Amino acid sequence: MSAAVAALDWGTTRLRAWLLDDAGKVLAERRGDDGLITAREKGFSTVLEGHLAAMGAPETLPVIICGMAGSRQGWLEAPYVTVPAPIGAILAGAIRVPGQGRDIRIVPGLAQRLADAPDVMRGEETQLAGAGLPAKGRHLVCMPGTHSKWVAVEDGAVAGFGTWPTGELFSVLAAHSILRHSLGEHPAAVAADNPFFRQWCERALGEGGDVTSKLFAIRAAGLLHDLQSDDAAACLSGLLLGGEIASAKRRYGAGDEPVVLVVSGALAVLYGAALGVAGLAFRTVDADEAVRAGLVEAARENGMIGAAA
Amino acid sequence: MSAAVAALDWGTTRLRAWLLDDAGKVLAERRGDDGLITAREKGFSTVLEGHLAAMGAPETLPVIICGMAGSRQGWLEAPYVTVPAPIGAILAGAIRVPGQGRDIRIVPGLAQRLADAPDVMRGEETQLAGAGLPAKGRHLVCMPGTHSKWVAVEDGAVAGFGTWPTGELFSVLAAHSILRHSLGEHPAAVAADNPFFRQWCERALGEGGDVTSKLFAIRAAGLLHDLQSDDAAACLSGLLLGGEIASAKRRYGAGDEPVVLVVSGALAVLYGAALGVAGLAFRTVDADEAVRAGLVEAARENGMIGAAA
Repeated sequence: MSAAVAALDWGTTRLRAWLLDDAGKVLAERRGDDGLITAREKGFSTVLEGHLAAMGAPETLPVIICGMAGSRQGWLEAPYVTVPAPIGAILAGAIRVPGQGRDIRIVPGLAQRLADAPDVMRGEETQLAGAGLPAKGRHLVCMPGTHSKWVAVEDGAVAGFGTWPTGELFSVLAAHSILRHSLGEHPAAVAADNPFFRQWCERALGEGGDVTSKLFAIRAAGLLHDLQSDDAAACLSGLLLGGEIASAKRRYGAGDEPVVLVVSGALAVLYGAALGVAGLAFRTVDADEAVRAGLVEAARENGMIGAAA
Repeated sequence: MSAAVAALDWGTTRLRAWLLDDAGKVLAERRGDDGLITAREKGFSTVLEGHLAAMGAPETLPVIICGMAGSRQGWLEAPYVTVPAPIGAILAGAIRVPGQGRDIRIVPGLAQRLADAPDVMRGEETQLAGAGLPAKGRHLVCMPGTHSKWVAVEDGAVAGFGTWPTGELFSVLAAHSILRHSLGEHPAAVAADNPFFRQWCERALGEGGDVTSKLFAIRAAGLLHDLQSDDAAACLSGLLLGGEIASAKRRYGAGDEPVVLVVSGALAVLYGAALGVAGLAFRTVDADEAVRAGLVEAARENGMIGAAA
């Protein structure tokens, strides 16, 4: 089977590229650290064509892109679609990069223009489109990461969403706050079966997402109870994940169906454990597969490849 | 009137020293950046005698010290007093530094050895002792700062306390998180009458101290609503102070009397405004005066100066 489309998830620091057939099957894959920060220097077209050539893509192969490459600081701004919005309409709003030898389009991000809860996403809308949500019903989707997104989907449309900077808070507090003394210079990966993870997750859940009152307690537990650095990292992780889940649950309720957890790698286990502690049923969708499926769907919505068989 | 005692608030990065008469009146004052980090290199005795000589203190003048100089990393560890504990007993537990030409004592810090809320303080216990609390009744004391402390006092004893790292979160998030793009390189001091301060304070109060769900919204408000950097700093400050107050109020209730706000400088105005938004009555005690009064009280409890007239 020959490639129908090249698909890119082009973020701030990283890029992933695939050649896909028209059913979304992976024919070739590239990963690079030439996210938009690097690409702004080298040129987006140069970076893209380099990856395409390395995968042996024909010169006329169309390209569909999602992520921060479509931001104001990226290749070409793909203006935000304002929610509420049907997921199909978001994908169909991809904009074409002018002056290129091939058909290159960038999927827009989403904006929630609420005075009391402004929010934006870029990239996660494509994961969402590829997460295989039923066309009907109310569904709650959790996409963990540096900036975790929770999305309420109603009958195939994004009703609202929110961002919890859980991954970023962990990194920043571990490196720059007083907790660096507790976690040590190179915190080990947190194990979901560390009892401190579960305990501090419960603690945050028990107070509805109040995280800030418990941060210093991790430091104090080191001074008073000889808490070790790996366990301190588990405390911080459990506290932040528990806080995120408590807060999102309060905002969106639990949904009609299990939470759809769109995630890859180590975070899958941690978020699965935390959702379990919170008593929330969930089903897991692989985030890499979801973004590829979403990109294929976007290519289809924009007529870059044929309709699904 | 001649000096009765030299009193020092000796923290991690700063030191303040006074010569006081036996009523606590200030006869001389010194401020230095030779906190324990510097003093560990120069020698605590050398640093202390330098400041005392500069203030013209006699060689036999006794010295009372509070703060991080009494920590394990300080001059001499003054072991924590475990709460609940009467404030007078805390002060009376000051330990004497051996091998010195004069009587030098360090006030112990406090430890809350609860499995689910471990906490420590050093220095604030002395402010608390000098805050002029009535001997009877239940009082809630707020001591804002890098690590804000809230203390529940019952009939002159510390019943419990907690730490909210509000000042540290502001600094760390402003410098190292995605919010640095929103606040700019040198965030201006936040004005308490900035409407964003009040609005985001209300927002955190409305959700019981859930701060983490609203951090990214400050960034999004910059992208979507052209929020300016000074206003973004006001949002972050309001959010963190509102979150602290909501959380402390839930933990300790409101007390029989107005909250006792022990604070100096710009924070006095911000916390006063935030307590107002929260609908909490308060009275303000100057933190500098409180720590001096507490040190005099500690000197008295340890028989270093005569009983109060």
